[in-house]
Amino acid sequence: MQSKPSEPTMLQVNTAQAGSSGEMPKLAAAANTLKYHDDRVLMLDRRRLPDEEVWQEYTTYEEVAQAIEQMVIQGAGAVSYAAGFGLALALAGSRGHKGEEFGPAVQQAASRLRATRPTGEQLAPLVDVLEKMAVEVRSAGQDPVATVVREVEARMGRADAIARKCGQFAADLLDDGDAILTHCYPGGALLYMLDHARNQGKHITVYSTETRPYLQGARLTAACTSQMGFDTTLITDNMPAFLMYQGKIAKFVTACDRISLDGHVANKVGTYQYAICCNYHRIPFIVLGYAGPRAKSPDSKSIEVEERDPEEVLYCRGVRTAAQGVKGYYPAFDITPPTLVTAIVTDKGILSPLQIKTIYGGKV
Amino acid sequence: MQSKPSEPTMLQVNTAQAGSSGEMPKLAAAANTLKYHDDRVLMLDRRRLPDEEVWQEYTTYEEVAQAIEQMVIQGAGAVSYAAGFGLALALAGSRGHKGEEFGPAVQQAASRLRATRPTGEQLAPLVDVLEKMAVEVRSAGQDPVATVVREVEARMGRADAIARKCGQFAADLLDDGDAILTHCYPGGALLYMLDHARNQGKHITVYSTETRPYLQGARLTAACTSQMGFDTTLITDNMPAFLMYQGKIAKFVTACDRISLDGHVANKVGTYQYAICCNYHRIPFIVLGYAGPRAKSPDSKSIEVEERDPEEVLYCRGVRTAAQGVKGYYPAFDITPPTLVTAIVTDKGILSPLQIKTIYGGKV
Repeated sequence: MQSKPSEPTMLQVNTAQAGSSGEMPKLAAAANTLKYHDDRVLMLDRRRLPDEEVWQEYTTYEEVAQAIEQMVIQGAGAVSYAAGFGLALALAGSRGHKGEEFGPAVQQAASRLRATRPTGEQLAPLVDVLEKMAVEVRSAGQDPVATVVREVEARMGRADAIARKCGQFAADLLDDGDAILTHCYPGGALLYMLDHARNQGKHITVYSTETRPYLQGARLTAACTSQMGFDTTLITDNMPAFLMYQGKIAKFVTACDRISLDGHVANKVGTYQYAICCNYHRIPFIVLGYAGPRAKSPDSKSIEVEERDPEEVLYCRGVRTAAQGVKGYYPAFDITPPTLVTAIVTDKGILSPLQIKTIYGGKV
Repeated sequence: MQSKPSEPTMLQVNTAQAGSSGEMPKLAAAANTLKYHDDRVLMLDRRRLPDEEVWQEYTTYEEVAQAIEQMVIQGAGAVSYAAGFGLALALAGSRGHKGEEFGPAVQQAASRLRATRPTGEQLAPLVDVLEKMAVEVRSAGQDPVATVVREVEARMGRADAIARKCGQFAADLLDDGDAILTHCYPGGALLYMLDHARNQGKHITVYSTETRPYLQGARLTAACTSQMGFDTTLITDNMPAFLMYQGKIAKFVTACDRISLDGHVANKVGTYQYAICCNYHRIPFIVLGYAGPRAKSPDSKSIEVEERDPEEVLYCRGVRTAAQGVKGYYPAFDITPPTLVTAIVTDKGILSPLQIKTIYGGKV
């Protein structure tokens, strides 16, 4: 299943455009880490970063579904595009199907892919859209694979533009000399924010939590910001409050996997804990909201918090940490209420969490 | 340096007395994990737990000093007894010294041992007492080694009795059905507390943070409470607040490495973060204070917070977690103010943090 993509891929997002001050990391844009080519899905294995750049190759939607579940790819946007390409593989596998077989086969694949990760707000809606699109295109006698792949690629391109815009707005919230603290891997908007702030002449330093159990902070975020030339310090997940107490943190900046219309934010577990600590220390808690809420969850109760395999908590990079007989518990996300959120930054600008309903509520 | 102690050791603390409902873990009492025998110090290597029971053997004070620094042993009490035994090794090595060589040699060893870990409040004072004792005994023409070893052993025995008493008082704060959350390895008092509560007919379950970077929660605490038969669930250090939000945690119970007379508590980094989260969720934050403050720090400013090698943050059980170029930062402890502490339990009973000065302030 592992290979290096040997041929030029269909979509190249030139993330180097973002700023003159250094190369943007590959992870800044999903399109750099996820490709559909010749009825294969190629995926940069984020679990192996930063040690090595391993590309996984998948030829069935079930393989893609498992890759999403097993965190080969992560982040609300990226997993949705991976699911979209997974659906394209299912469509490719159904090319020879008769009309009456096609619908159920696509439906089955779509259901499987939708069920991979429940919390992120883009995955299920995108699979819905693509499934509908595929059925229509096929009815019109055309190849739905190309249509679905093009649609996903177009969305990846738009998502990168949105991340850039969101990051540029967020840069205005940073002051020269700020040290920011972040958690998990917040995606391209964080990197664009830092790059833009640097272009504005601001000197910013970065603290990153390691983000157990998957260590996205240690492996992805700290690697990216360090590669971009930012002074980057890694801390364990129990240290943020003490750094705030010491006056080391000017702002907390995180992404989110889902925003409800009443301003709640679901993100990697730990975010809520840091929001409480920011509130206690009067430190701005800033959410990179990308394109804003899309799943139209009215409130926090309508957000399903994914619980992952408890065993994952008992290991660190494959090494067992706990004694036999000890159980784990692994809520993958948590929910931060609007009362702890200072600002949600989207591609529309810097917003109060209480503006979300006004601005995005009408488009249900 | 590794061996199994082949001979009966001098001091046996029968921790099984503590309760009828199950064997007490070895870690409950320092004397079970640290022995002085035949001018050797034997130390159960806590870094290897729970995978294997490895005893390290040391014959010089410098080896003991390094073992303390390298976390072979941990916990404010245990490291102080280890330093005491280290001093005994120095005295043993000075048996042949002339009178004028003896004083400086002992002084040098004492300085080295005092410098190993600055935050715990028993280590430096105990080394002071033992150094003075050794000089006096030697002046009187007696062997200071036996005196110092006996003194440390007696203190380990008294410490176990204090831990038991502290744990018994703390058990009164638990209610039937409570799930407690704890952090790092709080020592014997936690285990005695749980055992006593069970003997009182209360059903208690345990959540333990894993406590990065050394994973004392995963490796020591969860192993001990699980071995005692308590339903034990391990979580990563970023999850406590979300469990509180979910209503899963009735009380937070932790130990501390130092208490200042004005009621501040220094403990493993993360404790402060969880105290803030307890406060936000109105969950009692209970400190197991053992014998109360002994270093007589008047306030938080007089507590030195040890910073350990930043590299330790970049690894987990020997496996690198971060990219090259990323720095670490490792404050080993943090300080929780009395306004976040609901109760400090010592062998004198259940106290408010503001009672500490009244009760312990006079004995400076």
